[in-house]
Amino acid sequence: MNDAVSIAENILSRKVSAVEIIQTALTKITDRNHELNCFTTITVETALQDAVNIDREIAEGKHPGVLAGVPFAVKNLFDIAGLTTLAGAKINAENLPAIQDATIITRLKKAGAVLVGALNMDEYAYGFVTENAHYGVTHNPHDLQRVAGGSSGGSAAAVAAGLVPFTLGSDTNGSIRVPAALCGVFGFKPTYGRLSRAGVKLFSSSLDHIGHFTTSVRDIATIFDVLQGEDEKDPVCTKRPPEFCLPQINNDISKIKFAIADDYFTQKADSEALAAVVKVANALNVTEYVTIPEAKIARAAAFVITACEGANLHLEKLKSRPQDFDPATRDRFLAGALIPSSWYIQAQRFRRWYRDKVREVFANNVDIIIAPTTPITAPLIGQKTMILDDEEILVRPHLGLFTQPLSFIGLPVLSVPIHQENSLPLGVQLIAAPYNEALILQVAAVLEAQGIVAHALRF
Amino acid sequence: MNDAVSIAENILSRKVSAVEIIQTALTKITDRNHELNCFTTITVETALQDAVNIDREIAEGKHPGVLAGVPFAVKNLFDIAGLTTLAGAKINAENLPAIQDATIITRLKKAGAVLVGALNMDEYAYGFVTENAHYGVTHNPHDLQRVAGGSSGGSAAAVAAGLVPFTLGSDTNGSIRVPAALCGVFGFKPTYGRLSRAGVKLFSSSLDHIGHFTTSVRDIATIFDVLQGEDEKDPVCTKRPPEFCLPQINNDISKIKFAIADDYFTQKADSEALAAVVKVANALNVTEYVTIPEAKIARAAAFVITACEGANLHLEKLKSRPQDFDPATRDRFLAGALIPSSWYIQAQRFRRWYRDKVREVFANNVDIIIAPTTPITAPLIGQKTMILDDEEILVRPHLGLFTQPLSFIGLPVLSVPIHQENSLPLGVQLIAAPYNEALILQVAAVLEAQGIVAHALRF
Repeated sequence: MNDAVSIAENILSRKVSAVEIIQTALTKITDRNHELNCFTTITVETALQDAVNIDREIAEGKHPGVLAGVPFAVKNLFDIAGLTTLAGAKINAENLPAIQDATIITRLKKAGAVLVGALNMDEYAYGFVTENAHYGVTHNPHDLQRVAGGSSGGSAAAVAAGLVPFTLGSDTNGSIRVPAALCGVFGFKPTYGRLSRAGVKLFSSSLDHIGHFTTSVRDIATIFDVLQGEDEKDPVCTKRPPEFCLPQINNDISKIKFAIADDYFTQKADSEALAAVVKVANALNVTEYVTIPEAKIARAAAFVITACEGANLHLEKLKSRPQDFDPATRDRFLAGALIPSSWYIQAQRFRRWYRDKVREVFANNVDIIIAPTTPITAPLIGQKTMILDDEEILVRPHLGLFTQPLSFIGLPVLSVPIHQENSLPLGVQLIAAPYNEALILQVAAVLEAQGIVAHALRF
Repeated sequence: MNDAVSIAENILSRKVSAVEIIQTALTKITDRNHELNCFTTITVETALQDAVNIDREIAEGKHPGVLAGVPFAVKNLFDIAGLTTLAGAKINAENLPAIQDATIITRLKKAGAVLVGALNMDEYAYGFVTENAHYGVTHNPHDLQRVAGGSSGGSAAAVAAGLVPFTLGSDTNGSIRVPAALCGVFGFKPTYGRLSRAGVKLFSSSLDHIGHFTTSVRDIATIFDVLQGEDEKDPVCTKRPPEFCLPQINNDISKIKFAIADDYFTQKADSEALAAVVKVANALNVTEYVTIPEAKIARAAAFVITACEGANLHLEKLKSRPQDFDPATRDRFLAGALIPSSWYIQAQRFRRWYRDKVREVFANNVDIIIAPTTPITAPLIGQKTMILDDEEILVRPHLGLFTQPLSFIGLPVLSVPIHQENSLPLGVQLIAAPYNEALILQVAAVLEAQGIVAHALRF
C-alpha cells in the first residue's frame, strides 16, 4: 500500500476512486485479520458511505482535504460515535456507545480521511505486548509467532501489514514507540499536551499522549499538521499556536547538534538494538554522546505515577469486580491502589526536578538525542522473560525501558524503523526538546531519503 | 502604636527618628513577651543598626522607602539570614542558620522596613491554635487565658498587642485568617502564587500562601504592593504583572455585586459569628445570598492534600524520630503518611472541578462574597472541644471550618476585624475571584471609614 499522501493525491487527481481504495482496504483487513487480530471492529458501512461522499465531492469540483479518501483506524480507546469504546477491557463492553467522535478523529475526517475500524490493545493500555485476555493477542506481521508490542499493538500491526496507511495510538510510557519499533513502522509521540485527548479513554492523565503510526515521514508530518491545535474540550491541550511541520522538512541538517544517549540508554540494549543506533548515528555523522541524568529514577517515578493514577481511575471496578479484569493488568492495578500518597507526591516532585535537568541538557548541548526504542526485537507470544545485561527480567513491563524516561516529561519522540537483514525490524528514537517536533521530522526525512530508515514491508 | 504608613511618614518627615521607633518597639516587645509569648527571637542588634542606617539616609536627603523605619516581625518559618528557621519544630533547631533572607523579607527591607524578630506558630504550621509543645502557647492579647489562633498565632498577637504595626504569616488552610479574627486585626491572604514563597519553609505546597497582618487597610495595601511581583526563585510565583492596589482604594462601591455565603458557611457559625457577618452586610446594604457549591467536600479534600503533602515533607523524620515531634502534629502527620495515593489524586481532581465551579459563581453572580472567618471567638488555652450546631468537635483542626474551602483554590481573602461590646473580637472574610485583591481592599477601606471594621486595641 502507498503512503497516505500518495493515496490522497491519486484520489484527488481521480487516478483512483475513494471507493476503490476503501474497498481494497476492507478486503485486505478481512483477509488478514483472522491471523493478525489487530482489528476489534471494522466499520464497513460508514467507511463505504464516507468514500462515496468523498468521490462525489471530488466529482463536484470540491476539495475534500489533504487526506481525501485515505483509510485509517484507531486504537480502541478513541471514542467513535455509535460504537462502545472498549479500551481493551471486557467491563467496558457493557457501556453505552459513544455519542461523538474523539476530537482528533473529527479533525481527520474533516481532512477527508475515512475511518475503517478500531484496533486491539492491552487492557486499559497497561502493557507493552498486546496480549489481551479478552480480545486475544495481536500478532506481529513480520513473524506471526511474535508479539506486535503494545499497548497500541493493533495500531502498529495494521500499518506494518499494509492494511491501512496510518493509525492512531496512545503512549503513556512507550505504547506508541514500542510497537512501532517491533513492527517496523514510524511511531510518533508529540509533546505532552500538543494533541487533544478529548474523547480518548485516559490511563494516567499526567503521562498520556496520543500520536500516530505511518509508513513515511511525510505522512507523519502531514497528519500531525491535521491533528494539532488547541481544543477547548481538553484542558491539557495547550494554547500554543500550531507550527506547521511539513514545509519545514528540508535536507539541510548541518546546524543541528546531535548526540547519542549514553549510560542508562546503552546498558540494557542488546547488540542489535545498539547496532541500529550506530547505523543512524553514522548516517548523521554523530560522534558525540550525552547523558540524560537520572533516567533510571525517572523510569521508576513514571511507574509510580502510572500505577497510582491508573489504579485511581479504575478503583471502583477493582473493588467490585476484580475477576473481570485481565489478570495481566489486575495485579498491577491492585498494587497501584495500595501505594501511599507519599510515593506519588515524591514522584511528581522528582518529575519537576528531572524536567528542569533535561531542559538544561537541551539548552546547553544538543538538539536531537538518539537512543534505542526497545532493548530487543519482538519477543515470542507468551514469552514471559528476557535476559538483558545478564539479568532475567519480565517482558511485559520492561520493553519500555528506553521509552519511559522520555514520555515521563512529555518530550516529543519519533521512533524510526530500522531494517535488519535476516532479522526482525527495530526502532531508534529521535528525541527533541518540547515543541521541537519539526526538527525531529526534518532529521527523519534525511534518514529516509538516505534509505537508512524505512517501513519494512517484507512479508 | 500608629499604623505602618503613619510611622514611616513621621520618620521620613523627621518628626521622630527610626532609632526612637525601633527602641520603643523593642522595649514593648521585651516588656510584653513574657506574658504573650509571641516572639521566639528578637533581633535587637541588627534592628538597631538598620534603624541607624535609615536615619542616616534620611539625614543625607535620601528616601529609604515607603516603610522607612517601620518595625516588623515574621512567623518563624521565614528564612532570616544568620538565624535558624524553626517552623515551630524542635528538630529544626539543629539546622544551620539560613544564609539569606526570604525574598519577601528582602523586599520589605528594600522599602525601609526594619525586622525586629521571629514569631511563634504551631509546629510545621499544622494547627489553628499556636499551642506549641516546644516553644509554648501564644496568648491572646485580649484575654491571656485564651489562644491567639494559629498557625500564625505569634504574628496576629504581636500586631494585636501593638508590639509591631505589621507581621508576616502563612496560610495553608486558614493560618493567617483564623488568628487575625481571634486577635482582632486585619489578616490578608492574596491569591495563590501571588507572593513569593522563596525562603519560606513549606507545609503543603499545593495550598501554601503567605500574607500579612496589619491594623489598617492602607497598611494591607501598601505592604502588598511592596511584597508582590514575580520571583524567579519561586516557580509558583506567577509572572502576572503587579497591579498596584493602593491607588485603587476609593469609596465608590456602587457597582460591586456583593453576596453573603449561605449554606455551609452559616451552618456551624455561632450567633456572634453570624452577627458579625450581618454587621458587615448591613453596612454594605447586602441582601443577596450565594452558595459556594460543595464547600464541605472542598474542606475534606483540602484536609487530604494537606495531610499527604505535609507527611511526605517530614517522612524521614517521622520514621526516624517521631518522639521529637509535637504530639499534636505527630498523629496527624503519621495518619497522613498512611493515606493511599488514590485519595490524594481524587482530592486534586475534585479541586480542579471545584475551582471551575467557583469561577462560574464569580463570573455570573458576584464580585465579593462575605463569610465568617471563624465559627466562634477565641477558645480557652487547653480547650479541646467546642459545640457547634449541637455537635461537639475538636477545636484545633476545626477553627478553620470556614477558611479551608477558600484557600483550597487559592482565592484572595481578607479577614477584617469586628469589635464586639463586652466580648472578644471576631473576623469576617471578604472573598474575591483570583487576582481581584484591589476590589477586596476597596471594600475594606469603605468599611473601615464607616467604623465597621477596626483594629481592636482595648487592653
